[in-house]
Amino acid sequence: VGKDEMRARLSEARVGRLATVRADGRPHVVPYCFVLDGDAVVTAVDDAKAKTTLHLQRLDNIGANSAASVLVDHYDEDWSQLWWVRVDGDATVSGDQHAIDLLQDKYPQYRDRRPPGPVIRIEITSWRGWKS
Amino acid sequence: VGKDEMRARLSEARVGRLATVRADGRPHVVPYCFVLDGDAVVTAVDDAKAKTTLHLQRLDNIGANSAASVLVDHYDEDWSQLWWVRVDGDATVSGDQHAIDLLQDKYPQYRDRRPPGPVIRIEITSWRGWKS
Repeated sequence: VGKDEMRARLSEARVGRLATVRADGRPHVVPYCFVLDGDAVVTAVDDAKAKTTLHLQRLDNIGANSAASVLVDHYDEDWSQLWWVRVDGDATVSGDQHAIDLLQDKYPQYRDRRPPGPVIRIEITSWRGWKS
Repeated sequence: VGKDEMRARLSEARVGRLATVRADGRPHVVPYCFVLDGDAVVTAVDDAKAKTTLHLQRLDNIGANSAASVLVDHYDEDWSQLWWVRVDGDATVSGDQHAIDLLQDKYPQYRDRRPPGPVIRIEITSWRGWKS
């Protein structure tokens, strides 16, 4: 899978899975909404999807270990149609309002309910892609 | 989400995402096919989905750190229909043929092309579920 194709597939994906590492060294993975911004993937803590708290495990994890991985993939019962794209990088947490604007551009669901943040920005250091 | 519902959703999912931790402490995540076997999720290295090698990063990771997490989720543009289930546990690698039988029962795609293995078995130590 070439870089342009990986970029297009990551950009168009509606959901990704964010993997981080807990302070105790165990893995953590959650589905999440994000937007590709240049060579970074950005997301924001939102209140549009029911949560009991905005203090999320992923924020604790990044505070202890900034390494993060984001996966987008397509499953199909025809196994000649499978693909995935994964980016690895380092995450920082901020209140970047431009990132929230980009999320609202991508997701109409956020337009009536602007995510309060914080914002997690992962600067991509490597791209991997696969298709069957 | 109650335990019975989590179990049903995990059992029925056709694809999960397996998160592990690399020897250098960075996260790793891949989509994968699996079957729920009691209180474990099992998978096998296969050759039914084009790979350049059967020596996979996930096996190296588990060798260094057995902690693993498996996520299944449903995305929908109607954000009142979202859900995910995540199980955490410890992984072991074996040549368990019974696990491969179970994978063939679940996935017709494996019936003509039995996975050679090895088998990764994750004994579940915790269940988490969420729905919007």
